[in-house]
Amino acid sequence: MEAAFADRITDVPRSFIREILKVTLDRSVISFAGGLPNRDLFPIAELKAAAMRVFDEEGADALQYGPSEGHAPLRDYISRRYRERLGLEIPPERILITSGSQQGLDLLAKTFLNEGDDILIEEPGYLGAIQAFSVYRARFVPVPLTESGMDIERLTGAMASSRPKLAYMVPNFQNPSGISYSAENRRAVAEAIGGTRTIIIEDDPYGELRFDGTPAPSFGALAPENTILLGSFSKTVVPGFRLGWIAAPPAVMDRLLVAKQASDLHTNSFSQRVLARYLLDADPDAHIARIIAVYREQRDAMLRAIDGHFPGSVRRTRPQGGMFLWATLPEGASSLALFEKAAARKVVFVPGTPFYIGRDDAPTMRLNFSSVDAATIAEGIRRLGDAMREG
Amino acid sequence: MEAAFADRITDVPRSFIREILKVTLDRSVISFAGGLPNRDLFPIAELKAAAMRVFDEEGADALQYGPSEGHAPLRDYISRRYRERLGLEIPPERILITSGSQQGLDLLAKTFLNEGDDILIEEPGYLGAIQAFSVYRARFVPVPLTESGMDIERLTGAMASSRPKLAYMVPNFQNPSGISYSAENRRAVAEAIGGTRTIIIEDDPYGELRFDGTPAPSFGALAPENTILLGSFSKTVVPGFRLGWIAAPPAVMDRLLVAKQASDLHTNSFSQRVLARYLLDADPDAHIARIIAVYREQRDAMLRAIDGHFPGSVRRTRPQGGMFLWATLPEGASSLALFEKAAARKVVFVPGTPFYIGRDDAPTMRLNFSSVDAATIAEGIRRLGDAMREG
Repeated sequence: MEAAFADRITDVPRSFIREILKVTLDRSVISFAGGLPNRDLFPIAELKAAAMRVFDEEGADALQYGPSEGHAPLRDYISRRYRERLGLEIPPERILITSGSQQGLDLLAKTFLNEGDDILIEEPGYLGAIQAFSVYRARFVPVPLTESGMDIERLTGAMASSRPKLAYMVPNFQNPSGISYSAENRRAVAEAIGGTRTIIIEDDPYGELRFDGTPAPSFGALAPENTILLGSFSKTVVPGFRLGWIAAPPAVMDRLLVAKQASDLHTNSFSQRVLARYLLDADPDAHIARIIAVYREQRDAMLRAIDGHFPGSVRRTRPQGGMFLWATLPEGASSLALFEKAAARKVVFVPGTPFYIGRDDAPTMRLNFSSVDAATIAEGIRRLGDAMREG
Repeated sequence: MEAAFADRITDVPRSFIREILKVTLDRSVISFAGGLPNRDLFPIAELKAAAMRVFDEEGADALQYGPSEGHAPLRDYISRRYRERLGLEIPPERILITSGSQQGLDLLAKTFLNEGDDILIEEPGYLGAIQAFSVYRARFVPVPLTESGMDIERLTGAMASSRPKLAYMVPNFQNPSGISYSAENRRAVAEAIGGTRTIIIEDDPYGELRFDGTPAPSFGALAPENTILLGSFSKTVVPGFRLGWIAAPPAVMDRLLVAKQASDLHTNSFSQRVLARYLLDADPDAHIARIIAVYREQRDAMLRAIDGHFPGSVRRTRPQGGMFLWATLPEGASSLALFEKAAARKVVFVPGTPFYIGRDDAPTMRLNFSSVDAATIAEGIRRLGDAMREG
């Protein structure tokens, strides 16, 4: 077959992480490279009970084609939770259930982006978003992150020099950096974008996984007219169900539904019902509290190990939640070279490079602490420190 | 929010069928408009048993992120079944599990279609495919169908006057017409397209639901170098799991994987494992035989009722399988006007118009026989015949 591919697909960056994961197939390798939630915390028994109820009580309904919008009780639950957690009034009619929030990104890109449209992203930014938007050949306008959020000066500069149709942000425990936007920073971002035609996509997969500190307001509250929200159950329940959502104004929902129908008709009906049953019958808050307790301990273990084993010249963030921590080597150091040395010592991480647009060898690295226990973290970080000290 | 939508999304035809389905919410309306498999035949107990085994034996693995290619045992099963059913040698590495075959269409469009590329489709054609390809702003080249398949003269004409990158065909029990391509017709199609750069997308959701007649060879055998296969478990098991697949050459698989990752990372891991368990533990062939027995009876009931109640001027197809039958009113008659009269008599169908590209009021109609029992079919067709005779 002499396949003539679409230009869009030849433009998409290969998932560097997939390559790295191959290394980690070797069980003796300690991996901080993944982005997986901790499988030991999956509520298997509760989900099994919920699945039983769905088979017994909803049988054929749960296995037939379903509405493109998603399962009503699940949309109701998400709406209630926005009210209870964030004080946001988002009626169920404004919530579209998606096949994971990665599909949320694809549907938003499909709905908004013409080739060459500007899209504002964080630097470093989430790889999945960069991939999804690349498919639609958007022009990326990266704005650097600081410890406390967006670099406001650079943001206002970007808003003045480009016409971003969308602005993609992960304000809580950002992937890859682990930083969170401060309340002040969020107000400044809302100030800079509110009233323009730019739409903020607030992606919040980790927001409920807060270890310490106090939550800052969502852009859904600070710039409601300019904000579309993305959510996911992958980090708070399980990723295998591929269940997330988009919360958008009615006019946008209308278009998103067309995109959803064209993309896969609707999201898995059975898993939506099992999840809804689980959320209503079990105690999801107690489960999230368990996840927080474990991840906090693992984050602390990683912070201690880094401060004990990394050279003083290496800077690192101190995430208040989520799954990732970000380290910065001295200017000029190569994280790709470090990756080779580390892999030889059977420890891996994700070099920062793929999280930037068009950068060759960033001296930064992403370290995941959610899927490795405290003792293994200590050992892995020690090996990594040794690799850093290698001539 | 002043949303500036992408051009692509404003081009997509609204799903006319969604509008029609609203009418059918009234329980007293007999609907031949749907495209749903018969829910009474869902193997609920077997799927429940399979789900239990997955929770007990594969627990966390089934709930964690999974490979973008899909669950290996499911890909192996599909590969074996191609060998056993059709004598096609398609190794598992060439099979990508998708979120229903609707996603297969989206991924293929994403991978191959630049704006304005020609795509050859059947006339009348499958609405889901028209929607999926419209999103990528392809230029449709419709080729009329005859009782025995593609109109070969029109096909060769289209191949000469356009450069179709893709040719979308449903050779078995086509949706909406119910017709199948004869062996001769398939050879002529393979002749016309084989050796060109055009890729045949053979979509076969109904192929296993054959009531009578003998299977004709797949384009995967007649034009292997030019063919990509699409499959689905929605009609043979359940649609609610949203599980289908693409079988493509390695070079194409490579690109499809990039598109898949960007679209939703991977398909629901849990449902893939439940389906694989079901297929291995239960007796899917006995289940398919039950579906065939019921659908055959319902098709026969519809043929009898049509021949008894429709005016002699109305032509209809005689599907050898699948879920749909196609009727053609006398030239000049309006199926949209008939729809209004029929709805008043509480019976609905899908007027042919949306199955054509840029046609206003085709005198044709799609009748679904899979989800309505024989007695209801007789009553519904009688009402429809009365509506046809109305002045």
